[in-house]
Amino acid sequence: MSGLVPKDPEFEERVRDSFARQRVMTTLGASLTEVGPGRAEITLPFRDDLTQQHGFLHAGIVATIGDSACGYAAFSLMPADAGVLTVEYKINLLAPAKGTLFRAVGQVLRAGRTVTVATAEVRADEALIAVVTATVMAIYDRPDVRN
Amino acid sequence: MSGLVPKDPEFEERVRDSFARQRVMTTLGASLTEVGPGRAEITLPFRDDLTQQHGFLHAGIVATIGDSACGYAAFSLMPADAGVLTVEYKINLLAPAKGTLFRAVGQVLRAGRTVTVATAEVRADEALIAVVTATVMAIYDRPDVRN
Amino acid sequence: MSGLVPKDPEFEERVRDSFARQRVMTTLGASLTEVGPGRAEITLPFRDDLTQQHGFLHAGIVATIGDSACGYAAFSLMPADAGVLTVEYKINLLAPAKGTLFRAVGQVLRAGRTVTVATAEVRADEALIAVVTATVMAIYDRPDVRN
Amino acid sequence: MSGLVPKDPEFEERVRDSFARQRVMTTLGASLTEVGPGRAEITLPFRDDLTQQHGFLHAGIVATIGDSACGYAAFSLMPADAGVLTVEYKINLLAPAKGTLFRAVGQVLRAGRTVTVATAEVRADEALIAVVTATVMAIYDRPDVRN
Repeated sequence: MSGLVPKDPEFEERVRDSFARQRVMTTLGASLTEVGPGRAEITLPFRDDLTQQHGFLHAGIVATIGDSACGYAAFSLMPADAGVLTVEYKINLLAPAKGTLFRAVGQVLRAGRTVTVATAEVRADEALIAVVTATVMAIYDRPDVRN
Repeated sequence: MSGLVPKDPEFEERVRDSFARQRVMTTLGASLTEVGPGRAEITLPFRDDLTQQHGFLHAGIVATIGDSACGYAAFSLMPADAGVLTVEYKINLLAPAKGTLFRAVGQVLRAGRTVTVATAEVRADEALIAVVTATVMAIYDRPDVRN
Repeated sequence: MSGLVPKDPEFEERVRDSFARQRVMTTLGASLTEVGPGRAEITLPFRDDLTQQHGFLHAGIVATIGDSACGYAAFSLMPADAGVLTVEYKINLLAPAKGTLFRAVGQVLRAGRTVTVATAEVRADEALIAVVTATVMAIYDRPDVRN
Repeated sequence: MSGLVPKDPEFEERVRDSFARQRVMTTLGASLTEVGPGRAEITLPFRDDLTQQHGFLHAGIVATIGDSACGYAAFSLMPADAGVLTVEYKINLLAPAKGTLFRAVGQVLRAGRTVTVATAEVRADEALIAVVTATVMAIYDRPDVRN
């Protein structure tokens, strides 16, 4: 994970701008709490109206912050003219999403010109509850998917 | 996919009751529009406040209905005293989630006493936009995860 | 899955040539038994020296033919000058790999210029034992990964 | 990853016995080079007859050692009377499998009575070439899948 050098010195602003335009994040109450080269953290306080049938945070919401942490970790290393699309991700749910504060930390494992692989750990308070691995693609010359 | 015989004749009511207790579904505006033995369909109309930065439905929301369609397809075949937990899922995103009505159809591939594997296709209007494969586990003797 | 039109009319020869250069297939005793547009079938007879501790075919060998069936299904739709790389795959193992003849059928779900998604079903005699979903990438201008 | 306490004090012998009965490992030339609580390492020297069309180790063989490293990491923490089955795994291929010595290190992320989640990193000499996440299940009272 060394050598994760951003191609765009203003990567943090670019990542924060894109996140701010993801309206779902406001709807869910999620914040982008940290951005670094090849790294992004998204935080979400527990809310009763995002639960599954046992009163825990729904797995889909856990995955939403985990997948987005991977996507923004990848996006931080892309050139300024690249758009970003998630190709696929897998999530393993390790423990019930029971807690007051959820935190997904995404980290790039390998950054290529087109394809980047990132992983995220999601914690409920201090407990590790899920791991995500994602493939993220840089898109060039597609103004409809600018970020 | 033959031989998917429900162990509980009242499986449909059990599935609908559990879905109704997933508060996130109300928050997102998702409905359980079909339940059959080893099969479940979840429908979600497009909403501006669930979008990513390009104005399409966020991948995490696509995954939420895809994963839940797998979970309820699996749950329909479980005994009346089983709880259900998603162990893992993977989603491949095939096309932008651009459309007015999103529909996830989950189908069991193999149902075991403990572990069930299901797959879901997610469509935006008529276009196939994502496929999910999920591992779902039946839980016995755990009153905290009754469904 | 309609509209899977090969860009290279000689796709079958190109796929068969590439398969013939995968030395591991000879080592395992696997054959490419069918090629169509967006489709490939690989067949492997059971062998005692490819087993796990219970005497069934090892999951890694099941995955090897499943993943390759996805890769060649994808490769059949690529232009003549493209190389092919598997980016990732997931396999769900549905039943023990117990049988005399193993057959993996790969099918493209979506073919893009760069990224293709394919799925494969693996059967032991007639029983479905595994499903694979794979992301496959076309590579241009990389003579070291010509196919 | 703390608290990974083996339930069977003779776990190492049990893991080594099971590995020795995987005939495919002898066929491929793979060795179990390290076993610890919740941890296993499998090593494989490069061989010409295990290659894909570019002369690199075939992804299926990379996955075979990665998946098995996860399985044995999980098995090391199971009770003495448990059998082990891989439910699913995903592999992300980060770089071509180019090198002389391949090494897969599996590590348990969470060990449950029934379901264990493990991850493996696969290296070619020093380079990280693949990551695997796997779900592994303990089986009780099934003499046909004793290990």
